[in-house]
Amino acid sequence: MFEKVTIIGFGLIGSSFAQALKLSGKVTHITAADASQEVCDVVIENGLADEATTDLKQAVTDADIVVLSVPVGAMEAVTKSIAPFLKDGAVLTDTGSVKDAVTKKVAPHLPDHAAFIPAHPIAGTEFSGPLAGFPELFQNRWVILTPLPEAPLRAVEKITEIWELTGANIEIMSPEHHDLILGITSHLPHLIAYTIVGTATNLEEDIQSEVIKYSASGFRDFTRIAASDPTMWRDVFLNNKFAVLEILQRFSEDLTALQRAIRYGDGEYLYQTFEQTRGIRRAIIEAGQADYPVARDPKKASQATS
Amino acid sequence: MFEKVTIIGFGLIGSSFAQALKLSGKVTHITAADASQEVCDVVIENGLADEATTDLKQAVTDADIVVLSVPVGAMEAVTKSIAPFLKDGAVLTDTGSVKDAVTKKVAPHLPDHAAFIPAHPIAGTEFSGPLAGFPELFQNRWVILTPLPEAPLRAVEKITEIWELTGANIEIMSPEHHDLILGITSHLPHLIAYTIVGTATNLEEDIQSEVIKYSASGFRDFTRIAASDPTMWRDVFLNNKFAVLEILQRFSEDLTALQRAIRYGDGEYLYQTFEQTRGIRRAIIEAGQADYPVARDPKKASQATS
Repeated sequence: MFEKVTIIGFGLIGSSFAQALKLSGKVTHITAADASQEVCDVVIENGLADEATTDLKQAVTDADIVVLSVPVGAMEAVTKSIAPFLKDGAVLTDTGSVKDAVTKKVAPHLPDHAAFIPAHPIAGTEFSGPLAGFPELFQNRWVILTPLPEAPLRAVEKITEIWELTGANIEIMSPEHHDLILGITSHLPHLIAYTIVGTATNLEEDIQSEVIKYSASGFRDFTRIAASDPTMWRDVFLNNKFAVLEILQRFSEDLTALQRAIRYGDGEYLYQTFEQTRGIRRAIIEAGQADYPVARDPKKASQATS
Repeated sequence: MFEKVTIIGFGLIGSSFAQALKLSGKVTHITAADASQEVCDVVIENGLADEATTDLKQAVTDADIVVLSVPVGAMEAVTKSIAPFLKDGAVLTDTGSVKDAVTKKVAPHLPDHAAFIPAHPIAGTEFSGPLAGFPELFQNRWVILTPLPEAPLRAVEKITEIWELTGANIEIMSPEHHDLILGITSHLPHLIAYTIVGTATNLEEDIQSEVIKYSASGFRDFTRIAASDPTMWRDVFLNNKFAVLEILQRFSEDLTALQRAIRYGDGEYLYQTFEQTRGIRRAIIEAGQADYPVARDPKKASQATS
């Protein structure tokens, strides 16, 4: 049982985490903290947490566990604001998509009597905001913890336990390794999706309307990814710069090779490349990571409740 | 009512078309023709058409409408084989993803008493083969016809009518314009997805297994697209070379600009780019093109029938 859990930043991830914890029945009191009073009102109206406040001091006082679920770029400022009010033995964690930069920004500001266990749930949808959250988001998904070597085991176990309440599976690795893997599986794909949809946005207006009308299988999926929260993703790229630039370089080389094959009509090279990528899809399906629970569209959700 | 419709190449599209026509009750006899005897056996075992044969002459004799649903690279050879046996007044059409190259490869081989109306249904899934087909695939999707100026109106009307039986909506445009629009909405996204999954395939083996394990939202979607039929896509790129290279050049410039913004920490540029792409997603949802009927996995389908 956990007495008081405070979630700071009540967007898709924070809201889903709160709802999953509530459903588990193992947390006595869940506090939502958000800079926006409007978000706090939505939390209370929809019963997404037991309490909602814009006052960080009030939010973290007496909290056993504090979860930073704000964009990566806001982590340092929030940590500075809450550090003086963290109780003895409090465990701080986060949900950021970048782990090395976050650790360096958060850890130095903590008092000795509190611990920081960085975490990243590999889950999400293209929707943002508290009403986009749903309690099944983390079921059968991975949560990666990247504790520093000096982290107290007790704190690692607490964060493991609370994430297990959501149905997630836990892995531990170094922050640098996390950032490389996620650079490939998440950050680069988002960058590419943003680029390709951006390229379409720059087209002449008449062509653009036809692109929308005939948005076939490929492009439609890219637009879904490119509808993700811009602030969150800006911060990811600014804070995982080196891994993203490294993997982007490899990608550009591979794309140039395909471009060259198209220009010179090298069908054999194209076929070989397109054939080998099927294997990875098969492996993902076998790993049980191919399907997601259906995302909750906050616009539809708010229509349904209004 | 149509007397005899022959579909040559019985993959995802050909099979779905046959099933949709059958369901409409407006076609007396549907013939499937495929180079593979195995495919013909599957067609008969599963009742996907009234008749299945590897003999092209037998397939097209007496057919009112003949549909070429083979990869773009096979269109010319098939047309040459069937041309002598097309009946007086027969209308030939196709389902290729490239229209200018197909028109130039097919039209010159036709006898004067037959007409060719190129067509492209903007629909598909990542699965291939006759068992991947399902009759709802074209419902509320667009089918683009690209008839030459000299095409007889009667033939255009026939192809319009038969596609309308599947629940599709019809548009007419020039082959060149089709190839540009589809280059953006379909061909480039597939090329990019193949590239990004290919880049992951080239990673060191230990990292690769983690990429599969933690395949987050972005990468997972790319692997689905990159699981599409390699022969079909090789032919698309070889036959829509100029439009693809042109749009690829724009994409590369836009990606370089984002890469530069990441390197120099230009958060404002990143945010602006990520913000503007949301509008296109909204427009696609409003155009009713955001959702698809659930794809039919042929492996599951064959398990279900065996």
